[in-house]
Amino acid sequence: MSERAPWAVIMAGGSGTRFWPASRSKRPKQLLPLGPDPEESLLAATVRRIRPLVPAERVVVVTGAALAEATRAAVPELLPENVLLEPVGRNTAPCIAWAAAHVARRDPEAVIAVLPSDHTIGDEEGFRGVLARALASAREGTVTTVGIKPTRPETGYGYVETGAAASASGVLSVVRFVEKPDLERAKAYLEGGKHLWNAGMFFFRADAMRALVGRHLPELAAGVERIDRAASGPDAARVLAEVFPTLPSVSIDHGVMEKADRLAVVPGDFGWNDVGSWQSAWELADKDPAGNAARNADVTFVDARGNLVHDLTSGAKKKLFAVVGVEDVVVVETDDAVLVIKRDRAQDVRAAVEAIKARGRADVL
Amino acid sequence: MSERAPWAVIMAGGSGTRFWPASRSKRPKQLLPLGPDPEESLLAATVRRIRPLVPAERVVVVTGAALAEATRAAVPELLPENVLLEPVGRNTAPCIAWAAAHVARRDPEAVIAVLPSDHTIGDEEGFRGVLARALASAREGTVTTVGIKPTRPETGYGYVETGAAASASGVLSVVRFVEKPDLERAKAYLEGGKHLWNAGMFFFRADAMRALVGRHLPELAAGVERIDRAASGPDAARVLAEVFPTLPSVSIDHGVMEKADRLAVVPGDFGWNDVGSWQSAWELADKDPAGNAARNADVTFVDARGNLVHDLTSGAKKKLFAVVGVEDVVVVETDDAVLVIKRDRAQDVRAAVEAIKARGRADVL
Repeated sequence: MSERAPWAVIMAGGSGTRFWPASRSKRPKQLLPLGPDPEESLLAATVRRIRPLVPAERVVVVTGAALAEATRAAVPELLPENVLLEPVGRNTAPCIAWAAAHVARRDPEAVIAVLPSDHTIGDEEGFRGVLARALASAREGTVTTVGIKPTRPETGYGYVETGAAASASGVLSVVRFVEKPDLERAKAYLEGGKHLWNAGMFFFRADAMRALVGRHLPELAAGVERIDRAASGPDAARVLAEVFPTLPSVSIDHGVMEKADRLAVVPGDFGWNDVGSWQSAWELADKDPAGNAARNADVTFVDARGNLVHDLTSGAKKKLFAVVGVEDVVVVETDDAVLVIKRDRAQDVRAAVEAIKARGRADVL
Repeated sequence: MSERAPWAVIMAGGSGTRFWPASRSKRPKQLLPLGPDPEESLLAATVRRIRPLVPAERVVVVTGAALAEATRAAVPELLPENVLLEPVGRNTAPCIAWAAAHVARRDPEAVIAVLPSDHTIGDEEGFRGVLARALASAREGTVTTVGIKPTRPETGYGYVETGAAASASGVLSVVRFVEKPDLERAKAYLEGGKHLWNAGMFFFRADAMRALVGRHLPELAAGVERIDRAASGPDAARVLAEVFPTLPSVSIDHGVMEKADRLAVVPGDFGWNDVGSWQSAWELADKDPAGNAARNADVTFVDARGNLVHDLTSGAKKKLFAVVGVEDVVVVETDDAVLVIKRDRAQDVRAAVEAIKARGRADVL
């Protein structure tokens, strides 16, 4: 690879409960095989997908200390030094600023792609084309993001409002970042054609991000500098443990992007799916003509429609499932729990998790 | 116990698939805990229920050779000699004639209650009262049965048409045995008030049954005599294996009862349920106010109604179940299979079993 290859910082923290019983405090969503390949975790797919553009030794993954082992196991090609372990979660701005400093120490001219690890992408070739454009824009010094063309009036995402075309082809200027809208505004965005979904992907030169954080979040910049100065010395762990929890917990969108003067966005349409719930997992899965999906599971469907059975047990011998006369239900089996949920109630997994917590069974959460 | 205590012959063969995946070729329905006590098999409940009337050493269980071990484990108080193992199933007449001969050799004056082992009884005290009346009638030499007062126009059962009152109180004469009727006739039976469900319980003196079989099924009588003569000698197993498969495969109803001159019936109303499907299992189970039942299972129900979760796994640590937004579904988990079935489709378990067989997975059947 040439020296000019970009870096990737992959954000892999989080501890969602929306995929219980598959997701656990020690096995969050990005470590689950929720994409098309039932053997590949979302995190592993994220790394594999960018490998034609980013060499393995330039991939940095930021995750929680509790997930160190599972993360390394999921992406064994990572350099050990490139797995950054947050002592506590402090939202995305500290995560990104710290990772940017880590990269800049190795490559002061680095161009960095920051990517979430918990989505799927149907058209990987198309995605890499968008990525290359965004990286080229970033290389010129402009902090750049990728916006997804909306397909529905989604109220669960932030939006990016686009302006005039920027210099490079396929790149637009950003008028503003918009937080999750209500349904009426989401419908207007969809019709207006100027708004894109904010997929949480950011592209920048390390020095550009450093300047932005220094200007808009000086406290964060100072903290990250302390952590980074100690990083290669004997006090690295102690300083990280002391300083990181004191960093301001703020999102990169709110803390930096919304305040930056000059941002660019590359519109993308590459089958992005944020896999928000078991409903999305069903949508993404291969299905038989009756709409039934079996993932890692041996299922006999009899007069059943629209179901998903996902077997995440670790034993060598899988159970045989039979689903009879049932419609639109998701069944998830793990080594210690079984979820049976109506697909259109997938959001209520949280209620189940709360109820289980209230019963004192945190051991299965 | 006095010498005049009755004997019980409990029919515990069969290999139903209606309770798959709980029921298996080696664990048929009567060995499952489908009654009110989630720890007690239907067979064990059948024996326990009659123990105030029948001493343990007078209980005989007839089952298939393949079920010997499981049957002894389910009812450890049985004398080893009182577990009769059919080399093959030949319907109820050979089973009852053989068991009657076995009992008569020990107690020529024996009065015998023949009972199925795959139903539940809600009012056990009331049942024993009916049993005592039927045994008293049998002791006088009359073959007697128990008829259940119908509560619906059931087309799945045989009926007993009652006539005039017999001598003893609470005992009626039998006009005839009727095979499963169509719906119209079943409705007429229900309205007419003369017909009772045939619950497959028979009461007789050993000598009376021997005479009836000799008259109506002479071939069976001869075969049973050969088996019984050899029973205490060194050739017992060989003769049984040779002769039993040649016995006429006929039901006691058809081969004997329908042809007998003088039969009595004791009407009973003691919460009898033949537990015909997972639907019946749900009906019988203790339910929360939303109609959800958890049997041997740790279940969190969230906005769920009318469901049954039955955990029959053998591991020390049970899985935790969560059922969210689902209605009228039965979930059954065993060590190697999981069934999810709409309750009103319980009859279609058979279709699932057939489909699994067609896929070459007889290992889970």
